[in-house]
This record gives sequence, C-alpha cells and structure tokens, in this order.
Amino acid sequence: MAYSPVLMHLIESLQCMPGIGKKSAQRIAFYLLERNLEGASVLSEALATAVADIKHCERCRMFTENNLCHICSSDKRKKSQICVVESPADVMAIDDATGYRGQYFILMGHLSPLDGIGPEELHLNQLEKRLKIEDIKELIIATNPTVEGDATAHFLSEMALRCSVQASRIAHGVPLGGELEYVDVGTLSHAFFGRRFID
Amino acid sequence: MAYSPVLMHLIESLQCMPGIGKKSAQRIAFYLLERNLEGASVLSEALATAVADIKHCERCRMFTENNLCHICSSDKRKKSQICVVESPADVMAIDDATGYRGQYFILMGHLSPLDGIGPEELHLNQLEKRLKIEDIKELIIATNPTVEGDATAHFLSEMALRCSVQASRIAHGVPLGGELEYVDVGTLSHAFFGRRFID
Repeated sequence: MAYSPVLMHLIESLQCMPGIGKKSAQRIAFYLLERNLEGASVLSEALATAVADIKHCERCRMFTENNLCHICSSDKRKKSQICVVESPADVMAIDDATGYRGQYFILMGHLSPLDGIGPEELHLNQLEKRLKIEDIKELIIATNPTVEGDATAHFLSEMALRCSVQASRIAHGVPLGGELEYVDVGTLSHAFFGRRFID
Repeated sequence: MAYSPVLMHLIESLQCMPGIGKKSAQRIAFYLLERNLEGASVLSEALATAVADIKHCERCRMFTENNLCHICSSDKRKKSQICVVESPADVMAIDDATGYRGQYFILMGHLSPLDGIGPEELHLNQLEKRLKIEDIKELIIATNPTVEGDATAHFLSEMALRCSVQASRIAHGVPLGGELEYVDVGTLSHAFFGRRFID
C-alpha cells in the first residue's frame, strides 16, 4: 500500500529539512493539505524566491538578496572591528544583546575536518584578505564554546596574529542567574581560571 | 536588527508547518540555503504541485490527485466492509498490518466541538449516504482510543444503527510485548473487562 504519487513525492521532499523524518513529514503534509493550503502555497513561493534570490554578502557572507548585506552597506557602523560568528542567528543575538555596532564575518559552520569542512569551506581566505586590506583593529571571535568552535577560534586567532590584528574571544563562564552548584565542571573551571581582579 | 526581507519571509513561511517555531524555522532556512538548495527547489515544486492537484477521493476522502483513490477504484477489494479511521496514515498502517482488503472512510480528524469540528466538518453525511445506498455489511470503527476518538466512535456506531449496518470497534487492551505491570490503568481495565473466553 502506498499514497498517491503526488502525495508520496511531497512527503519525501519534506524530509530534505533537518530534523524532519518520515512520520513528521506525513504529519506536516496532511496538516498542510487539510488545514493550511494557503500556507503551503506561500511556503512554496517563499522557497522558490529564496533559492533564486538569496546569496552570500560579498564581505561578511551573511544571507542577503543584495550584493552587500545591510550591515556591510551601512555607514553608521564601526569599520575597525570584525566579529566572527558561526551562524546568521548569532549576528542577530549579538546585535540585539550587546549594542555592538561593528562588522561581522559569518562562517556558516565551524572547522570540522571529519565532515570535510576546512578553512576553504568556511571561506577563511576571504576573512584573511579583509584583515590584510581593511584597517581592522580587533577580531572578536564569537564561535560557540564547543570542541569544534574552540578549534575554529584557535585557527582564527593565529590568522589574526599573522595579519597583525589584535584577536579577542568572548568570555566563557557562569551564566547570569545560574547557580554554581549546578554549573557543569568545564564551565566552572573556565570561570574560575578566567577570574578578573575587581577594580 | 533583522534578516533581509526575502530570508525573513522564508523563515515566517516555514512556521506554517505544525511543530515548527521561530528557532526551528531559522535552522531549517539556514540549512536549506547553505547546504541543500536542490532540496529546497524540489520541496517548493512538490508543495505547489500538491496544492494544485491533490484533492479528496470522492468516496473515502483519502488524499489523491484523481477523482477516486486507488483503493476505491480497485476491483479486488471487498465492497461490503468500511473501516473508518482518523488519518490517511491509519489506512497505511491497517492495510500493511492486517491484510484487510475492504473499503475505508477517512475522517481527517475527530469530533471536537470546542475546535468547531462537528459531523459536518468530518463529512459524516457522505459516510451515512454510503451506508444507506451501498450494500455494506459491517462498519469497522478504528478511531484512536482517545476521549475524542471514543466520542467519534460512539457517534459512528449510532449512525450505523440508524442505517441498520453492523458496527464493530477494534479491540483495545494490552499491547503485544508489553508487561502488565507497566501498562496504564485505563488500558489494563479495558483489557480485563474485555476478556474473551478461550475456545
């Protein structure tokens, strides 16, 4: 027994999304067909437009439909700092939380040799070129505090050194509102050895 | 701070799917744009085709791109039994597990007055017509063993009575491989009072 070919194809296509298996794809297909045809149409067009129009910003590799994203094309942002992050969502998070108004570089991942993701896949040569050509004073490394993120951070700090740019890494430690007792060993040890003198 | 309009629209559109919130939609959008443009294109077309072509089978309300689904249009299936289920996935499950080769009727949901889903929304008049016109001997009720599924089953059994058709309900009890100790109270009580004499 099988579904009709068109439905079958829809269920298979939905599984191209990460985290969506066969059961979820069925549930989504039935829901869209039964209760949200309008939403399905809109999604179909949004996907087609995105595939056709969205590319990487030429300077920071953010997703954008223009040659430069609106951060890189803005006159109001500091040109002397570049913050390196793993994902576009990190740009939003940092901009909203910190009031940082410098430049960004988005890796779209992290170094992961086992998955075949090296410096080339992250377009790090593009970043190195910026460090050499532009008048950059600081490279703020904000990769995730994971094994791969740390390895990537190490690689980036060496690149900064080669280009005579000061590198910095965002602080890791006990999150606000957390209780020491419940913080994991790695984080606590990080926080302890990264302690700062109080002025 | 915001993403570019096209990306923003994609992230919003992805949220039309059940179980996909803002964070998941972002993750899916970034993944598709970065690693699976091909999949996104295929999905876009599959959605458009499905929205345009898929409708309900005129007899059993299964999703199909033809007027009749391939079960209803088959000559090889018994015409005297109708099995009522809540979802198209249940049809697959029953056909594969039981070897049942009769007819189906798919409710695409269950009675749920609070959500405004009554007999009309489930197209029960269509089923009643079949019970009256066709030569049906048995109405097999296979709604889910939930409060709403049970209420729907009760409604269906009364409809069968009105149409002088024998109604039956699939058995509820201890699932195979389960241990009595760990089965919930409702199921165990159901299994106990539904015990059968051994021939």
